[in-house]
Amino acid sequence: MKSTLLAVLALVFTMTTATLAADAPYRHVVFFKFKDSATAEQVQGLEQAFIELAKKINTVKAFEWGTNVSPEGLNDGFTHCFFVTFADKAGLDAYLPHAAHQEFVSKLKPQLDKVCVLDYVAK
Amino acid sequence: MKSTLLAVLALVFTMTTATLAADAPYRHVVFFKFKDSATAEQVQGLEQAFIELAKKINTVKAFEWGTNVSPEGLNDGFTHCFFVTFADKAGLDAYLPHAAHQEFVSKLKPQLDKVCVLDYVAK
Repeated sequence: MKSTLLAVLALVFTMTTATLAADAPYRHVVFFKFKDSATAEQVQGLEQAFIELAKKINTVKAFEWGTNVSPEGLNDGFTHCFFVTFADKAGLDAYLPHAAHQEFVSKLKPQLDKVCVLDYVAK
Repeated sequence: MKSTLLAVLALVFTMTTATLAADAPYRHVVFFKFKDSATAEQVQGLEQAFIELAKKINTVKAFEWGTNVSPEGLNDGFTHCFFVTFADKAGLDAYLPHAAHQEFVSKLKPQLDKVCVLDYVAK
């Protein structure tokens, strides 16, 4: 029983530490507007390609995305947000020139109308 | 000992459930570019006002922000990102018309050059 309790306490400690380690993550926020000529299939293919990209580069610590649902109408045409988390700037520095990222960008560009990227260290 | 173990297991269960509940959070992503005429003090005051705002409205489940550090130069002049999390769309619906939010917006507007807002349900 004692060893079970210790194991559970160790698990709680690990979960807490993992949370604390992410206290000042490096966030990479990407907005896309696709060209009007991009088909729904092409857009869906690029969404999936970004999801796959995030799995290929091990400095990506968290990844989520979604399409705009804001009722405010302040999205300036942007329809997609991809929210990529690195532990630090070095994580982004490994990601940007990575072959998998370059390949994704070359697939993306012909369908992309505009992009806006803002990175911040979370406070 | 048995009751301690049960209490710890209950804690682990609660932590896990809390994590799962945030599986499809509603994200409200706000980019700001302040006017060139805005002083550093005014900008700092507005950063602080946004931080305080997030504490005043209880549908805000998480809040973080930071200033742009992207090396890519794709930020289109935007310098600030505020990343606000609600449990769902109803959380935003309570936030937008809230008196504290309206007061913040009226303080912000005279110093603001432009804003871009995109909301998404995280996948």
